Amino acid sequence: MRFPSSLVERAVEELSCLPGIGRKTALRLALHILSSPKDEAMSLATAIVNMRENILYCHKCHNISDTECCAICSNPTRDSRLVCVVRNVVDVMAIENTGQYRGLYHVLGGVISPIDGIGADDLEIASLLKRCQEDEVDEVILALGSTMEGDTTNFFIHRQINALEKNIRTSIIARGVAIGDEIEYADELTLGRSIISRTRFEDTISV
Amino acid sequence: MRFPSSLVERAVEELSCLPGIGRKTALRLALHILSSPKDEAMSLATAIVNMRENILYCHKCHNISDTECCAICSNPTRDSRLVCVVRNVVDVMAIENTGQYRGLYHVLGGVISPIDGIGADDLEIASLLKRCQEDEVDEVILALGSTMEGDTTNFFIHRQINALEKNIRTSIIARGVAIGDEIEYADELTLGRSIISRTRFEDTISV
Repeated sequence: MRFPSSLVERAVEELSCLPGIGRKTALRLALHILSSPKDEAMSLATAIVNMRENILYCHKCHNISDTECCAICSNPTRDSRLVCVVRNVVDVMAIENTGQYRGLYHVLGGVISPIDGIGADDLEIASLLKRCQEDEVDEVILALGSTMEGDTTNFFIHRQINALEKNIRTSIIARGVAIGDEIEYADELTLGRSIISRTRFEDTISV
Repeated sequence: MRFPSSLVERAVEELSCLPGIGRKTALRLALHILSSPKDEAMSLATAIVNMRENILYCHKCHNISDTECCAICSNPTRDSRLVCVVRNVVDVMAIENTGQYRGLYHVLGGVISPIDGIGADDLEIASLLKRCQEDEVDEVILALGSTMEGDTTNFFIHRQINALEKNIRTSIIARGVAIGDEIEYADELTLGRSIISRTRFEDTISV
């Protein structure tokens, strides 16, 4: 692609570094920015720089935050004895959007994946164990993705927490047939798991 | 969507103003920027602001440019008696990429579209006629899209140029079956047009 302007070429190069944005899309974005008012381009650039420069990570749960201690960890109405372990920020947002959880979180920053060179020391597992050791935690909910890496990480954390001998329960989010799905279309593994992990019918009826 | 940080929320809002980027994609982009080094975010923001602040439009062809007169218009090896009328910058780039054209361009900035409230006065048509009046132009090639709006604009420009009585030829790029296409899959309009606009076989054999 030959560009009529080096300024546009530079912007296209930078934009196409973003995930899922190729050079054609980047050019469309650049031309959109050119055709919009100057202050829109300015406020886009300012928002990007402000975010990158001033973002903090909660010292307790390692979620992104505007403050040293995030809004969830510093909320006194939340159950601090319940810690839900997730992979990243997006997972926190997904669980928060359900409105079904009132405990705290712990953001690992990834899962154990030897093939990508990510070991337990690269993740926030030591800080999770420190939390379990020092704070009063009753239960750690493992909410990692249902992949081999997620399962490995779940098992690793479960063993480490047991080794603390603090009588902390570890649980894992339910796997099963998604709500709205027909049984015949569920895959065998999921359906098999949903039968093994069946729950008492009475427990599923909201009072 | 509830955000853990107002800085991230602001960046997501700004990013999702870009065309084709919804809030989920914008969040993915924001988290990517957060996980990349600080100077990458800075250079992205700088490239956007630099482009928007310093871009110029060629005073002759109205293409975007780094200079008052763009690289194409100021290139003495190009045929200045040939002017190709296109809708926008992307079309200039598309034609340049073919390597088949050695004349100049004239970027209209759109096509006549009463339904969108775009009339001839909103486009660079007056400046095109001025160019035809003042410069030595032999031929104006109409290379607008094959839509009703494109055809209307083509016809309008053709009439206006004829009215100048400067003996300037107007031509239109060929419509027909695309190279590599089978006849049976071509639509009727295109195939009909390709028969009417047939060219002498000798003319298509490159010497």
